[in-house]
Amino acid sequence: MVDNRIYLDYAAATPIDPKVLDAMQPYFSDNFYNPSASYGPARSVADDIAKGRSKVAEILSVKPEEIYFTSGGTESNNLAICGVMEANPGKNLIISSIEHESISSPAKKFDYRIAPVDKSGQIIISELEKLIDDNTILISIMYANNEIGSISPMTKIKQVVQKIRKSRRENNNLLPLHFHSDACQAANYLSLNAEGIGVDLMTINGGKIYGPKQSGILFVHRSVVLNPQILGGGQEHGLRNGTENVPSIIGFCKALEISEQIKSAESKRLKLLQDYFVDSLKTISKCTINGSLKDRLPNNLNVLFEGEDNETLLYKLDQDGIMCSTGSACSAQKDTISQTLLAIGLNQKQALSSLRFSFGRQTSKNQIDFVIEKIKKILT
Amino acid sequence: MVDNRIYLDYAAATPIDPKVLDAMQPYFSDNFYNPSASYGPARSVADDIAKGRSKVAEILSVKPEEIYFTSGGTESNNLAICGVMEANPGKNLIISSIEHESISSPAKKFDYRIAPVDKSGQIIISELEKLIDDNTILISIMYANNEIGSISPMTKIKQVVQKIRKSRRENNNLLPLHFHSDACQAANYLSLNAEGIGVDLMTINGGKIYGPKQSGILFVHRSVVLNPQILGGGQEHGLRNGTENVPSIIGFCKALEISEQIKSAESKRLKLLQDYFVDSLKTISKCTINGSLKDRLPNNLNVLFEGEDNETLLYKLDQDGIMCSTGSACSAQKDTISQTLLAIGLNQKQALSSLRFSFGRQTSKNQIDFVIEKIKKILT
Repeated sequence: MVDNRIYLDYAAATPIDPKVLDAMQPYFSDNFYNPSASYGPARSVADDIAKGRSKVAEILSVKPEEIYFTSGGTESNNLAICGVMEANPGKNLIISSIEHESISSPAKKFDYRIAPVDKSGQIIISELEKLIDDNTILISIMYANNEIGSISPMTKIKQVVQKIRKSRRENNNLLPLHFHSDACQAANYLSLNAEGIGVDLMTINGGKIYGPKQSGILFVHRSVVLNPQILGGGQEHGLRNGTENVPSIIGFCKALEISEQIKSAESKRLKLLQDYFVDSLKTISKCTINGSLKDRLPNNLNVLFEGEDNETLLYKLDQDGIMCSTGSACSAQKDTISQTLLAIGLNQKQALSSLRFSFGRQTSKNQIDFVIEKIKKILT
Repeated sequence: MVDNRIYLDYAAATPIDPKVLDAMQPYFSDNFYNPSASYGPARSVADDIAKGRSKVAEILSVKPEEIYFTSGGTESNNLAICGVMEANPGKNLIISSIEHESISSPAKKFDYRIAPVDKSGQIIISELEKLIDDNTILISIMYANNEIGSISPMTKIKQVVQKIRKSRRENNNLLPLHFHSDACQAANYLSLNAEGIGVDLMTINGGKIYGPKQSGILFVHRSVVLNPQILGGGQEHGLRNGTENVPSIIGFCKALEISEQIKSAESKRLKLLQDYFVDSLKTISKCTINGSLKDRLPNNLNVLFEGEDNETLLYKLDQDGIMCSTGSACSAQKDTISQTLLAIGLNQKQALSSLRFSFGRQTSKNQIDFVIEKIKKILT
């Protein structure tokens, strides 16, 4: 075991920012009141949630009442898919071939189609267009992929959606076409302006932006009708019931605020580290980058170590104090082959020879040097 | 406004116990790893969750794999109802007339029947028996009520369930009959031995036992088949997907452990305070206790102030620094009339003249004296 561990799995989990934790602390044992209660201190807690909601809305350039706090990315994704589809029985939805299981699993409960991606993980727009029919109510395409960091062509998808809407209007088809995006991995690095991106629904996960685990939001444009999935006391306008997780909500809002403030600088810093990592990897034979370096999150590198077994590599790196991943953490313990890597054209053997390195706020050039050195040692 | 506020709304929310918060702290920013990841520090976090799960299982005298961590009481209740009913299409369920909305709302999605309660809030066993037919798969009756503190006759319900099961076996009806109980309010004061109580499913909420909000469990006996409600990465054996809320789970386990340790002493202490409050209220005319004092949680008093408007009383008490409630916090801001108070025989006017006082660890005799004094002043 080693003392100075190097964490390169920020796509799986981020530590809570100390400033976020500071913001949360008063709500655990002091301002612990149920925000639905009507006495002064409880109303004050409700006000703090409202302020947080407004801040989040401001960052997304949407209305506060379009922001719903949930218990994280998985719940938000389920709510988006099941909520819209249950409110529109008999309609169909389209997802991409590289969605997280919190999208692809609920989608299977409905009439769904899968839009393929190209070698870089970019959705093939012409294929997407072909799949949309007069009964398509929802398209869910992740903003940036969790395994290979590919950024979706949001502008092009937005144009497709607008074109279909126009055509439906002309043909008196009153069915709306909603665009949902899972922005869990994108939130730290890309614009979250909902109108700019073109989304009607969007998922953000606190656990990936240095906020609390199982915190998150679903943005739902006011024109979208969807069914609540967890019923009860009427919280979150009845869309997500249950006593609000106040410290978690406060923490999420603070985390998003900080992420937004440092987004530009941190993206640039990580891009340089990414380039440096890529250049260093070039000195190692049998290493290839999975996916394209273009339109990719600055904090992700998915590397194919041709002929190697990724579980063994992972184990050896762990012994050296280096933490990375074979893919989605959610699937890490299930011995499954990455559907994302297969979708971008790798074969099974290659998929099982690949590792994901994801960087974050504590990642430094020295750490990359150390990792490269260890990889070289392991491979020789 | 006042400095020394008196909190008598523990049924709505409890502050996090400092020892619980201490137990949670290391998992926010230090041991923040995704427990599904496979490197050492992540496995260590997964081990800590496993230890907590075992502790909870020990308290309930069940197997660790029968404990599912959720995001709180509302989610657990929804999972119990929708999970069982979706896994058994075409079957029916029975709930009591005084269930929380997180039970009664999801129940409405299925073929459901309502078993009435008597004046004390106790389910009428003969009526319950009449409602059970050959297609009844689930009975959900809360362990103790959130508004009037009435404790359900669990032994009698257990006997009914056993009788029906025996009769089904004799008639070759293979349909199981499951008994779920919402123990959110009961957990601090009553036995949680699942077999003793006779439950196959049970909900416990961290936010009511001095643990974190939106933490909780659903106990599911290994014989019960139910559908997951939030799909994704396979966490909690696929029944509750989404990256585990590690600090929250650790906090829940610690909170339940502490609650269990002090349960007996705290119940006795609060019972004395409850008696004292009742005796003091007797000195005030037009005050009556709603429900029975027998089979009632030691921390609850629901009081009818005949002819008074409860919202006005609540406001005046708040001005005096006293925090109590008109009923379920979840419904507090919705201007609805308590269905529980109507169910035990109050008329609408009486229900709108009632207040709930719920005590907890910080409640003292001095506080009760102060509250009684203020009530007297307000009513004269």
